[in-house]
Amino acid sequence: MKKILQDFKAGKVDLAEVMEKIKSLPYKDLGFAKIDTHRALRKGFPETIFCQGKTISQVLKIIEILSKENHNILATKANKRIYSAVKKVYPNAEYNKFAKTIIINREQLKPKKGKILVITAGTSDIPVAEEAVVTAELMGNKVEKVYDVGVAGVHRLLDIKDKIFEANVIIVVAGMDGVLASIVGGLTSKPVIAVPTSVGYGASFKGVAPLLTMMNSCAEGVVVVNIDNGFGAGYFASLING
Amino acid sequence: MKKILQDFKAGKVDLAEVMEKIKSLPYKDLGFAKIDTHRALRKGFPETIFCQGKTISQVLKIIEILSKENHNILATKANKRIYSAVKKVYPNAEYNKFAKTIIINREQLKPKKGKILVITAGTSDIPVAEEAVVTAELMGNKVEKVYDVGVAGVHRLLDIKDKIFEANVIIVVAGMDGVLASIVGGLTSKPVIAVPTSVGYGASFKGVAPLLTMMNSCAEGVVVVNIDNGFGAGYFASLING
Amino acid sequence: MKKILQDFKAGKVDLAEVMEKIKSLPYKDLGFAKIDTHRALRKGFPETIFCQGKTISQVLKIIEILSKENHNILATKANKRIYSAVKKVYPNAEYNKFAKTIIINREQLKPKKGKILVITAGTSDIPVAEEAVVTAELMGNKVEKVYDVGVAGVHRLLDIKDKIFEANVIIVVAGMDGVLASIVGGLTSKPVIAVPTSVGYGASFKGVAPLLTMMNSCAEGVVVVNIDNGFGAGYFASLING
Amino acid sequence: MKKILQDFKAGKVDLAEVMEKIKSLPYKDLGFAKIDTHRALRKGFPETIFCQGKTISQVLKIIEILSKENHNILATKANKRIYSAVKKVYPNAEYNKFAKTIIINREQLKPKKGKILVITAGTSDIPVAEEAVVTAELMGNKVEKVYDVGVAGVHRLLDIKDKIFEANVIIVVAGMDGVLASIVGGLTSKPVIAVPTSVGYGASFKGVAPLLTMMNSCAEGVVVVNIDNGFGAGYFASLING
Amino acid sequence: MKKILQDFKAGKVDLAEVMEKIKSLPYKDLGFAKIDTHRALRKGFPETIFCQGKTISQVLKIIEILSKENHNILATKANKRIYSAVKKVYPNAEYNKFAKTIIINREQLKPKKGKILVITAGTSDIPVAEEAVVTAELMGNKVEKVYDVGVAGVHRLLDIKDKIFEANVIIVVAGMDGVLASIVGGLTSKPVIAVPTSVGYGASFKGVAPLLTMMNSCAEGVVVVNIDNGFGAGYFASLING
Amino acid sequence: MKKILQDFKAGKVDLAEVMEKIKSLPYKDLGFAKIDTHRALRKGFPETIFCQGKTISQVLKIIEILSKENHNILATKANKRIYSAVKKVYPNAEYNKFAKTIIINREQLKPKKGKILVITAGTSDIPVAEEAVVTAELMGNKVEKVYDVGVAGVHRLLDIKDKIFEANVIIVVAGMDGVLASIVGGLTSKPVIAVPTSVGYGASFKGVAPLLTMMNSCAEGVVVVNIDNGFGAGYFASLING
Amino acid sequence: MKKILQDFKAGKVDLAEVMEKIKSLPYKDLGFAKIDTHRALRKGFPETIFCQGKTISQVLKIIEILSKENHNILATKANKRIYSAVKKVYPNAEYNKFAKTIIINREQLKPKKGKILVITAGTSDIPVAEEAVVTAELMGNKVEKVYDVGVAGVHRLLDIKDKIFEANVIIVVAGMDGVLASIVGGLTSKPVIAVPTSVGYGASFKGVAPLLTMMNSCAEGVVVVNIDNGFGAGYFASLING
Amino acid sequence: MKKILQDFKAGKVDLAEVMEKIKSLPYKDLGFAKIDTHRALRKGFPETIFCQGKTISQVLKIIEILSKENHNILATKANKRIYSAVKKVYPNAEYNKFAKTIIINREQLKPKKGKILVITAGTSDIPVAEEAVVTAELMGNKVEKVYDVGVAGVHRLLDIKDKIFEANVIIVVAGMDGVLASIVGGLTSKPVIAVPTSVGYGASFKGVAPLLTMMNSCAEGVVVVNIDNGFGAGYFASLING
Repeated sequence: MKKILQDFKAGKVDLAEVMEKIKSLPYKDLGFAKIDTHRALRKGFPETIFCQGKTISQVLKIIEILSKENHNILATKANKRIYSAVKKVYPNAEYNKFAKTIIINREQLKPKKGKILVITAGTSDIPVAEEAVVTAELMGNKVEKVYDVGVAGVHRLLDIKDKIFEANVIIVVAGMDGVLASIVGGLTSKPVIAVPTSVGYGASFKGVAPLLTMMNSCAEGVVVVNIDNGFGAGYFASLING
Repeated sequence: MKKILQDFKAGKVDLAEVMEKIKSLPYKDLGFAKIDTHRALRKGFPETIFCQGKTISQVLKIIEILSKENHNILATKANKRIYSAVKKVYPNAEYNKFAKTIIINREQLKPKKGKILVITAGTSDIPVAEEAVVTAELMGNKVEKVYDVGVAGVHRLLDIKDKIFEANVIIVVAGMDGVLASIVGGLTSKPVIAVPTSVGYGASFKGVAPLLTMMNSCAEGVVVVNIDNGFGAGYFASLING
Repeated sequence: MKKILQDFKAGKVDLAEVMEKIKSLPYKDLGFAKIDTHRALRKGFPETIFCQGKTISQVLKIIEILSKENHNILATKANKRIYSAVKKVYPNAEYNKFAKTIIINREQLKPKKGKILVITAGTSDIPVAEEAVVTAELMGNKVEKVYDVGVAGVHRLLDIKDKIFEANVIIVVAGMDGVLASIVGGLTSKPVIAVPTSVGYGASFKGVAPLLTMMNSCAEGVVVVNIDNGFGAGYFASLING
Repeated sequence: MKKILQDFKAGKVDLAEVMEKIKSLPYKDLGFAKIDTHRALRKGFPETIFCQGKTISQVLKIIEILSKENHNILATKANKRIYSAVKKVYPNAEYNKFAKTIIINREQLKPKKGKILVITAGTSDIPVAEEAVVTAELMGNKVEKVYDVGVAGVHRLLDIKDKIFEANVIIVVAGMDGVLASIVGGLTSKPVIAVPTSVGYGASFKGVAPLLTMMNSCAEGVVVVNIDNGFGAGYFASLING
Repeated sequence: MKKILQDFKAGKVDLAEVMEKIKSLPYKDLGFAKIDTHRALRKGFPETIFCQGKTISQVLKIIEILSKENHNILATKANKRIYSAVKKVYPNAEYNKFAKTIIINREQLKPKKGKILVITAGTSDIPVAEEAVVTAELMGNKVEKVYDVGVAGVHRLLDIKDKIFEANVIIVVAGMDGVLASIVGGLTSKPVIAVPTSVGYGASFKGVAPLLTMMNSCAEGVVVVNIDNGFGAGYFASLING
Repeated sequence: MKKILQDFKAGKVDLAEVMEKIKSLPYKDLGFAKIDTHRALRKGFPETIFCQGKTISQVLKIIEILSKENHNILATKANKRIYSAVKKVYPNAEYNKFAKTIIINREQLKPKKGKILVITAGTSDIPVAEEAVVTAELMGNKVEKVYDVGVAGVHRLLDIKDKIFEANVIIVVAGMDGVLASIVGGLTSKPVIAVPTSVGYGASFKGVAPLLTMMNSCAEGVVVVNIDNGFGAGYFASLING
Repeated sequence: MKKILQDFKAGKVDLAEVMEKIKSLPYKDLGFAKIDTHRALRKGFPETIFCQGKTISQVLKIIEILSKENHNILATKANKRIYSAVKKVYPNAEYNKFAKTIIINREQLKPKKGKILVITAGTSDIPVAEEAVVTAELMGNKVEKVYDVGVAGVHRLLDIKDKIFEANVIIVVAGMDGVLASIVGGLTSKPVIAVPTSVGYGASFKGVAPLLTMMNSCAEGVVVVNIDNGFGAGYFASLING
Repeated sequence: MKKILQDFKAGKVDLAEVMEKIKSLPYKDLGFAKIDTHRALRKGFPETIFCQGKTISQVLKIIEILSKENHNILATKANKRIYSAVKKVYPNAEYNKFAKTIIINREQLKPKKGKILVITAGTSDIPVAEEAVVTAELMGNKVEKVYDVGVAGVHRLLDIKDKIFEANVIIVVAGMDGVLASIVGGLTSKPVIAVPTSVGYGASFKGVAPLLTMMNSCAEGVVVVNIDNGFGAGYFASLING
């Protein structure tokens, strides 16, 4: 800006040009937060597309725009038909059929030091957990996963004592009673991100029951994301994984 | 009945009298389930008055009727003013200020063999737990209580391992996330009766959150009673405490 | 443990071996509650798989692991396709098309003395009731069933007076107004386990209405399990059926 | 109208006067349904004031307007302070402290032949029941009442068999599980008006539980009014009490 | 009963026979309400089957039992496949494709004098309204219907002024805002039965919105049945249609 | 009216005829509001059919009636099969596959001066937004649209600063957190109509979350219509677009 | 800005000064929408303080800041104690005890041409209506009010036909069934702003019932603001009152 | 452990003693996670007492136990009467009347490098925010606070651009529409912890509305804690503030 003003004083640019520049300042300036910081200072944030409710051609068009820059691309809640269409145009696209994610890898990120542990209460919670795993890995994190802890009861948790110990951040994915988040939160002093899932039946009300359980967790150090929001959990875990 | 019919045939009673007897049969007969079984075969069921929403004079009148038979009397959700009024008429009435219960002891019951364990997650759950304790004790049960388990985390549960082991039935009283019921249910193969409480704040919604947690408990052997229903839990525990 | 310590003192095992043993103690020890008690002391607990939300291959794999020990296996919410796949590998698998359960019978249990009575309000509640029946029978209980009591009104209940009398535990399965649980609870002094079902329409809200009715039951001696949770009711009934 | 037109033709009234008359017709005409029918054809409809949320002076002013005609006046949800103020101006005002109703009797109605039976499940439901009783009596109905049926269980209902038989319409007032409406509906073929009440605690959610129970009643011939709406039940019962 | 006792005294029957008779009394007696009144005193009550959640063979079997007596039979929520199966066995079965009802006409009922008016707010409410119409007609009522009143606004109601006037009972069927019930209730002093429907979208929440509107109706003389419960409305209307 | 009275006085029409005329007055009179104002004074109101829950033949029949007058016709929530059927009879019918609307253009409206701006938060909100656009355009408004503002964050809003400035009314369509309405409402002093949509997952509860967000908007000048009610938003926007 | 740049070129201001000016631009610029437009272009927007949850000293401090400019000040949900404190400092403060509003009049606004009509269904809705009235009047609108329309039924609406006709915008305030908004919306083609109120009892759920009724209004041209949000309704009405 | 085994082998301790040691292992071992890590490895975790629902003497007793070790003590939701009682015994206790917290400072913690920014939307959200501030400061964090951002609109956020930039973690406290969390989340790439508050009225439903808004936030990097849970937010912020 200084330069353009000096150029203006020096007569190299005219008033109209300076005015135009200044007029566009606020947007640039406000936008910085998002664009500068994200992209320039803290590399590794993927461009993300939430596919549910979008047509295939809409998804393709968004990817086309996003892929103009060199960032990684992540499409969530993507069914196989979307993947097939994307794969044709971007042959290096990879699909995770559990997570229903497509990733297009553009930049190799320097791996972070801390480890993220992803735990599920049951087998049915795996799709949501996998979405978290894919997201966190794409953002340069080492991720360890232990699924179906809840089947055999609390003592199974002890088998993974060392993993809980070594992790820097823990994501707990659970439906039905959502109790696992409170238990893990009670065992560790690491930050726990709880993800309620909509699996289950009866009074689990598509995820409301575990959501409330997690919200009311008596264990300190537990925060909650939206029902089935594996992406949000993986993303936040990466943010706080130093 | 046979006798009256034979008397009738023998001319000792007349038709009108027999008809009257028969007319009253259905009520007696249907009522038996409740009255005979309860009172005669399985001694120890208290007469109970739910005081909330009743005037003092209504409570007194009900006690007057109930006290005509020799059973124990239990008044729940009774404030001190009700107790004072009752105490004047029934000097042996006893008040539990936490449970807000009045008991009038009429019959000494033979103690049952099994033990009932009452556990609370927090200090604020104690009033509901005490209601369960008073009820179960009045019905002839040995009751052991461990309060505020949740404060120091899961490892506190292990300190009470032996108590869990020795108990025949376990009542778990918890508000907020209600997680304790699932954890205890996962550690024992004894029947667990879960009582959600309305203590807490925010998204616990006056007991809805722990109610849902308990309803959806992934641990087998857990059943649920109404929010704050300590009486119901104590009563049921006594029923199944052989 | 004593033996290994004596062996250690006697020089038969070395320090490393003892340390390894001790390290694994907590899990075993904590697990005991579940594993020892369940399996050793109180025979008859089936290994259970909740099939909903699991792929066929996941179900098969879990059965494979569970079937290493000699316990009975119970798969719930299993559709016919899962059954066909299981049947191929385990020819003695049996399917209940109403309950949608698969059982693989491994051990013959000594039948319990008490009888469990399973009652439904309507025809549509039968699938949930059958899940309770299958579970309770597999755990060694004699089960009697009376379905569709609600169709002809309260007087039908009197026709089954004797069955209610003889039963040790009663399971009431009902949707819509869920009133049957309160009525049965009012007629008997035996423990009643109420199962709300999601059948019905309008303001039954997929089981919320009967759930609330049952929760608020004014009859003493009624507890509630999750909506449609026939398994939980059968399991708990078996626990308390002496 | 005919007359005025003939007068107009005869020159007794002028055009402006006729136009004015016609202009006011629609309101009269539409209003007829309410005013004519109600007041003229079917005598006995009281003028009603719902006091909750109104200041004392507002209530007094409304009564002043209403009392210009000779109908009975009924004020509901009126506390004692309102009553005192009304009593000063209308010395024949009568207060029912349970129902919290004020009535000012202006016209003696010919009693209807049929009888209305008002039943409550518990003692705490009496205030709502009394509101129904006061309303129905003011509208010229014979009302019989049986309170606290639920305390002693279903067999109490049989004691009132004859009353149920003789009644033309039955109002059932119940909180908590609201089961009584379904039971009565199952025993009689007379119309049953169910009134859920907000008494109770826990998962009765201030009347939502009995409301849902009653809504979903499997017994035919049961309709529902708003929670605690004793007035509405009494009013409707009077409408259909031939 | 008197006769059998006199026969007994006269030696015509023996003690065992009398005892047996007496033993069966309570059920008969209790059942009377339902069976005697319904069937004998107030002819015209149909036997009803709620088909939803029942298999075709279950429906057929129930009809077989019900058809042993000579009453009319009504099957509700019956799809075409059920109808086809019923039609084969009962050729006089009639289907109403809007109401999804099957009726089997067994007895010609003497028509009642009063008329029932069934009004819907929209076209989509017709299926529920038709269920009410079929039910009421089967029970011997003259039924008039006016559908889709809400489309053209309140003034349409005035076009049907005479119909509202002539009717003895009015059923109002409405989804979305459910306002029509309040408006009709405000125009007439006849009893109004409001049926909320689950048609609509957004914040109508499958009938909750009109249910609440109707529950809270400020017009006197309005009662409510369950969402989409056309049968219940038709049945109750017939009960009170003198 | 005056004329008919004068004719009557002059003997040109007889009493019966005048009485008939007067009798029909109220309906005409009341109806005026809707019919006169709408149609005569404020041209441009389309005749609208809500297709959901209607059969194709019902839709066709309604269009047939409506098309007797010369107004524009708008059918909403219309699937392609309905469109095909309509197109056959009304060849000038036009379909918007996103909005699922059919329009039949009958009258060319004079365009209004003000401009309506329709903004969506995401791509999935477009169908609801399009319904608003179609409605507003049919009513003679210039409509500008900016979709998917939310993808790139708040700074995108600044890019459309000029459009917000120029608009007379702004419609904001958003699901999930519904935040966009509050933000736009905070940036402008123009009236904002917020439309929550049912797109999204988890705790958005089919539109409840954005509905509540918008209802509680801390920005002044924001009102709300029903979930997914693009038509209502477009209609209201047109009403207030001078 | 141009001027400062020309001054800069002319050497009257130095580079640092220009840079400082430019740096502050975005805030000014973004803020313009709110501040410039509001205050400068469209006079009459009051500064508003929502008092609930604020201490008296906080309210006073906010008023102090706001009163530095010459705009009107409006404090809502203000109890008498707040008013007394304000009155001491600002003697021209005026209190409306129904609306619980304080206004401090600073600028005389040119009255708008159109009239706003505020209607309530009942007497208890008046406080919310008064808040709307105070707000609209402070913003320069002529406001007419008709309260308690609902007491005497629909025909009362006809009495105010002319007022509805003359109004430019209509605000309908109603609790319980909230039906009035739909009725008024059906009678007029003017924009209707519906305000649900939390008055009432039972299933009105503190305003949820009328909120849903209004949301689902089948009448076109109705939008909704938050429960009890009289201010929001008055503010929006003023925005669209040309 | 090794040592004791070697001692045992060496005969220094006997078998019983070793057995006792081993028996207590699991609890120690399991407990470690909480106790060792917390207290020893990661200094600075306060002992916390949730005062709501506890009597003064209970609070005093808990503090007495906790104060045996040298950690900081934090009591939340503590009213003034509790504080007075605590102050008498612990003169260095400090009270924050907004946050309603008592702290007893025992250990001086080494301040963390990163800064936590606490932002509120309104003045009424301050108490919850202060609870977060007190908690975070007690755990050794530098905390900056900006309250009442929402009053003047989005442009206020720009005024605090630098503060957002410098912060390591951001806590956003907001009631009503809860929009601020999404906006801040959209401006920064730092982790945002959203705290819904129960302030507000109408359809904010005591915090449900902002809870849902925050749960559904379309901005990445936002997690949620319970309604009014300032403590939880401050605690979690401290956990992730490197």
